[in-house]
Amino acid sequence: MAPTTNARVLFGAIPKDFPIPGETTVYDTSQKIDLETVPLNGGFLIKTLVLSIDPYMRGRMRSAEEKSYSDAFILGAPIDGYGVCVVLRSENPKVATGKHVYGIFPHQQYAVLPSMEGLTFLEKDAKLPWTVFVGAAGMPGKTAFMGWKEFSRAKKGESAFISTGAGPVGSMVIQLAKRDGYKVIACAGSDEKVKFMREIGADVAFNYKTTDTREVLAREGPIDVYWDNVGGKMLDAALEHAAINGRILECGTISGYNTGYEPVMNIHQTWAKSLTISGILVFHLQEKYDKEFYATIPQAIAAGEIKYTEEVSQGLESVGDAILRVQQGKNTAKAVIIVSEE
Amino acid sequence: MAPTTNARVLFGAIPKDFPIPGETTVYDTSQKIDLETVPLNGGFLIKTLVLSIDPYMRGRMRSAEEKSYSDAFILGAPIDGYGVCVVLRSENPKVATGKHVYGIFPHQQYAVLPSMEGLTFLEKDAKLPWTVFVGAAGMPGKTAFMGWKEFSRAKKGESAFISTGAGPVGSMVIQLAKRDGYKVIACAGSDEKVKFMREIGADVAFNYKTTDTREVLAREGPIDVYWDNVGGKMLDAALEHAAINGRILECGTISGYNTGYEPVMNIHQTWAKSLTISGILVFHLQEKYDKEFYATIPQAIAAGEIKYTEEVSQGLESVGDAILRVQQGKNTAKAVIIVSEE
Repeated sequence: MAPTTNARVLFGAIPKDFPIPGETTVYDTSQKIDLETVPLNGGFLIKTLVLSIDPYMRGRMRSAEEKSYSDAFILGAPIDGYGVCVVLRSENPKVATGKHVYGIFPHQQYAVLPSMEGLTFLEKDAKLPWTVFVGAAGMPGKTAFMGWKEFSRAKKGESAFISTGAGPVGSMVIQLAKRDGYKVIACAGSDEKVKFMREIGADVAFNYKTTDTREVLAREGPIDVYWDNVGGKMLDAALEHAAINGRILECGTISGYNTGYEPVMNIHQTWAKSLTISGILVFHLQEKYDKEFYATIPQAIAAGEIKYTEEVSQGLESVGDAILRVQQGKNTAKAVIIVSEE
Repeated sequence: MAPTTNARVLFGAIPKDFPIPGETTVYDTSQKIDLETVPLNGGFLIKTLVLSIDPYMRGRMRSAEEKSYSDAFILGAPIDGYGVCVVLRSENPKVATGKHVYGIFPHQQYAVLPSMEGLTFLEKDAKLPWTVFVGAAGMPGKTAFMGWKEFSRAKKGESAFISTGAGPVGSMVIQLAKRDGYKVIACAGSDEKVKFMREIGADVAFNYKTTDTREVLAREGPIDVYWDNVGGKMLDAALEHAAINGRILECGTISGYNTGYEPVMNIHQTWAKSLTISGILVFHLQEKYDKEFYATIPQAIAAGEIKYTEEVSQGLESVGDAILRVQQGKNTAKAVIIVSEE
């Protein structure tokens, strides 16, 4: 078989503020691969089926000299991220051809991997497309499920406020909070997203671009649990309207990823109201909760008990645009890329 | 017996920034009291022996319309605060004459109280002056002891950073952290305070006015536990140099009490490093820990195992100056007022 193109998405330049498709990420078709003869060296060859586009990826588009919880992308090399792949060939007796694998993969059509370290086998569920396994049943869903389990100290009848409530993390949190008997207040940045948040159970849903968050919280609060994906002024509003002994689950601060972090002015509310702020990183929680997650969440999604939405783009050439849309909040739902059909 | 003067400290005006002795607090001798005939109405008459001057008092010097965890002082009425009093006369069978009482009292020489609600009887310890019971063995000591017990998740061999380490809370935290096997880094605002912090066990002690906090933490960190009494830039430095799974105990934010709260820029470190920030209010913890505290801490102080320092002022006329010195950080040790001898 003749070599075939192995399309990739390369890290082209460090963004000054928002990423620029074609510049900060570059779609590249210069590499060829012979799928039948490429040496496996004891590893296995995968074909990428779907890839996930997530807010945290902006943090990896930095100089390698800046330390952070995640590695920086390498200039000139493919970016990487969560995805689902299928095994095409294998020299590893534990990795059978045809198996499906979840984990972090380079943004390219094909890759040879040395081992299953950090990767997980997935079982096909006829009712669930593979895209779900990078969204509601993948990293964002896990972040919501595990963060809520570990830090919410959930108590029936309390109130929860959730920012970016139409996103893959926030929408799962809304549904988990409703299951635990919460009054749920949720916000997002478009009326379409507000409609979706109501459909999945939010008692109070509003567009933070057209409605004053502090006014809503003053009326509907105080807030026992705040799930923060935004930071800055949104966090300050929640601190101001937090209940005594409130819990703030700090999952992300997207208000600052592209244009610099916004100041937070209300930290004194933590001691004034005995609040707890808990930072959530899903890979510190997976060992504890992965088994419970896979035993319950995919089947709840398949049964329609937990809802999700996706914004699907086709092909690696759409990665750059999808990254930008997520940073701008223009995506209407969980952003996923279908790289190849099976 | 002829009526005697009942000197008081009145709340005169809301401070614009720092409190002004004689203006925001006013020493007043216009009230008289007849100690033998003043009606008790089933309550008891106390003489104030010592009063405590603490940083949080600035927060009470506000308009009654601004809500907070503590009540605002009432304009024209005496301010109040922690103190130790002796019972002079009583119509309450549970409150014997000569008993000593700890709690919150008006800043005046004598007062008639209706009940023991919120107050605690103290046992005299020949080795301890009453001033200790508003400092190391009072609210500040309790704040340190109970906050550390509840939130530090202390683990031998870890590193702790403590701001305002020469104050009554910070100096107790330094000693508790050393007892739990910590490497202790501590800062304060004068070389005299640095010397004291070294004497009570700090491994690294520095004057934050002449030494760059971030440089010290970069060299001596990362920090597993940060005890914050300052907020603003000090908190940002600790967030920057916090260890993975670090705990921040948020006890106060004195950098902002008089001139407005400083912005905090590094909240994203909470999710990037799985940090927990726990707000401490001692009156939410007292029920759980009061018994253990009184059973261990006063005797450890009497035995010299826990050290403390005091800055003693004489008479209610010195309250205004003492409040200002504490807000400016000019006090060299726990500020206490001796109102009367027994």
